[in-house]
Amino acid sequence: MSDVRIDDLPVRDELRGKSPYGAPQLDVPVRLNTNENPYPLPEPLVERIAERVREAARDLNRYPDRDAVELRTQLAKYLTDTSGYQVGLANVWAANGSNEVIQQLLQTFGGPGRTAIGFEPSYSMHGLIARGTGTGWISGPRGDDFSIDLAAAEKAIAENRPDVVFVTTPNNPTGNAVPRETVLALYDAAQAAKPSMVVVDEAYIEFSHGDSLLPLLQGRPNLVISRTMSKAFGAAGLRLGYLAAHPAVVDAVQLVRLPYHLSAVTQATALAALEHTGTLLGYVEQLKAERDRLVTELRATGYEVVESDANFVQFGRFEDAHTAWRKILDHGVLVRDNGIPGWLRVSAGTPEENDAFLDAVRALKKEQSS
Amino acid sequence: MSDVRIDDLPVRDELRGKSPYGAPQLDVPVRLNTNENPYPLPEPLVERIAERVREAARDLNRYPDRDAVELRTQLAKYLTDTSGYQVGLANVWAANGSNEVIQQLLQTFGGPGRTAIGFEPSYSMHGLIARGTGTGWISGPRGDDFSIDLAAAEKAIAENRPDVVFVTTPNNPTGNAVPRETVLALYDAAQAAKPSMVVVDEAYIEFSHGDSLLPLLQGRPNLVISRTMSKAFGAAGLRLGYLAAHPAVVDAVQLVRLPYHLSAVTQATALAALEHTGTLLGYVEQLKAERDRLVTELRATGYEVVESDANFVQFGRFEDAHTAWRKILDHGVLVRDNGIPGWLRVSAGTPEENDAFLDAVRALKKEQSS
Repeated sequence: MSDVRIDDLPVRDELRGKSPYGAPQLDVPVRLNTNENPYPLPEPLVERIAERVREAARDLNRYPDRDAVELRTQLAKYLTDTSGYQVGLANVWAANGSNEVIQQLLQTFGGPGRTAIGFEPSYSMHGLIARGTGTGWISGPRGDDFSIDLAAAEKAIAENRPDVVFVTTPNNPTGNAVPRETVLALYDAAQAAKPSMVVVDEAYIEFSHGDSLLPLLQGRPNLVISRTMSKAFGAAGLRLGYLAAHPAVVDAVQLVRLPYHLSAVTQATALAALEHTGTLLGYVEQLKAERDRLVTELRATGYEVVESDANFVQFGRFEDAHTAWRKILDHGVLVRDNGIPGWLRVSAGTPEENDAFLDAVRALKKEQSS
Repeated sequence: MSDVRIDDLPVRDELRGKSPYGAPQLDVPVRLNTNENPYPLPEPLVERIAERVREAARDLNRYPDRDAVELRTQLAKYLTDTSGYQVGLANVWAANGSNEVIQQLLQTFGGPGRTAIGFEPSYSMHGLIARGTGTGWISGPRGDDFSIDLAAAEKAIAENRPDVVFVTTPNNPTGNAVPRETVLALYDAAQAAKPSMVVVDEAYIEFSHGDSLLPLLQGRPNLVISRTMSKAFGAAGLRLGYLAAHPAVVDAVQLVRLPYHLSAVTQATALAALEHTGTLLGYVEQLKAERDRLVTELRATGYEVVESDANFVQFGRFEDAHTAWRKILDHGVLVRDNGIPGWLRVSAGTPEENDAFLDAVRALKKEQSS
């Protein structure tokens, strides 16, 4: 028995020899590797969470509200307030992290015999969730500067006729935003190739210099905007992702969602966080300033940096990025090696954490020059 | 825009014309339709949940423990303590409800080009999650008394050579347990047909007159026991399902699980509940006595009842079960119509709730006789 391994089980062929996704969870002083918000929730919000969860726990023997009506209503209000574009309950759907939102979208609009495209490097879970849902994955191109080359992207869409198109803006792990006009052109190209869903992943939009693309939903029923509370709301531990789209899309994903997928404690915690939106968006402003400082200082130190609209910065170039990653780790600072040759990614932390990071990369640069 | 419907979107063909799964969530005095535990969590546990969630909320800006080590360790301890069969962290996996556990199993061992079988009527989500994961679904047979006819089941396995075999014991919605010998024979039949996974869904096992089949894991790496905290732990609102199996199975599902799928608040709440196992299992004993009372009284009233090892009872027979369902609802009591001709299902509630239900069905019987 003890020598039974994964490949001895009747697992699907495409899973053989694979490893689980996930960044190393290392215990180091400064963790800037998973784009977490470095600011703990303010204590009044912590108390409010305890209060709302206590209330929910008194009814925990009952299934949660399957349709999460109160939560979706408040998420819709947040989107409307921050974008000026009016969305309501019927436009919003929520799940356990934007990963589950994307999984539900691929189960509905992708799946066996269908394909999805993303422009890589981008959020690698798009492709992994495609695999997990039996959706064929097409790796679309990006330019050398990590922007989407529209002509090349349109060509890839026309040739492959994908059922789902992912556009991540701001893009992870590169940090750059996709211009509104490019997203519009990609939507039109996708519809011209075949009726297909375009999923704009705005996980980091609150950190952007530009605006959300929510208003593009007007008149585009095949468009989906995906969001998360992990970053701007400082609630990575909560696992709350959501989407905004035409009500028909919200109806459609309910055909594949697991019933009662969103627990009563998750709904209660998210509602508490939404009550404190103002404070949390204040932290976002601090992080944007720190992100800009990282860009400036990295450049001043002689690094190349991709323009960032997110709470992280991609920097390089390294002859051997993984060796550089390890040397930065030797300074007690954990950044992310996404496997992009020559580049590493650092999340914007607190000013102190960013100082520690900048000290580490300055030392690294000195070592390389000497 | 307003006239766009699901079928106007590029949804998968097999989803066209479908409706979302889920029992009606009606606001009636006595809800005995979803096998919820009628006992609210005891107040000291409610406080403990608030305390543990408050603690977790202080770190909510960080991703949760991706591997849920503490929770899985405590679940393993619970299984070991209640079954006498030793399992550890490496044998246990947890997810957002047993639905997600089953989804992960089907993504790993089922999926496109593969099939799963269940013996129906049984838990209808098995077939629905199969559809959602692109797994072909085979409806295996049950006898007229809702037991598994072993010869017929073995024949169905030999003919169809499924990749995944579901055995629900106690079975939902019929309530009867599957004998240990039958499960063993089905496991052997499945392995003889082709190497395949056998998933024993023990969602209701704590209410059984018999023992868990956990000890069957010994020497059977292709066996999985699925469990939930929704019923015995009175925590349907928590959405915490788990499985026990060979460590290789636990490794394998991690290839498809969404990273950080289990939130920090879910982990904290489940851990609090596990601290109060003794009290909660006390409620289970009360519910078993009430379940037995329901069986006795229903029979005394002239109803036919399937032997129950669960916290619910299937009763009949009705010429028109849906009309009977509506008449019971007129008495303020919500039971479940699972679409099995002639039968309805009632969850064991509090003594008062069960009295209300028994009054309703006695009145119904009187009406039918007059």
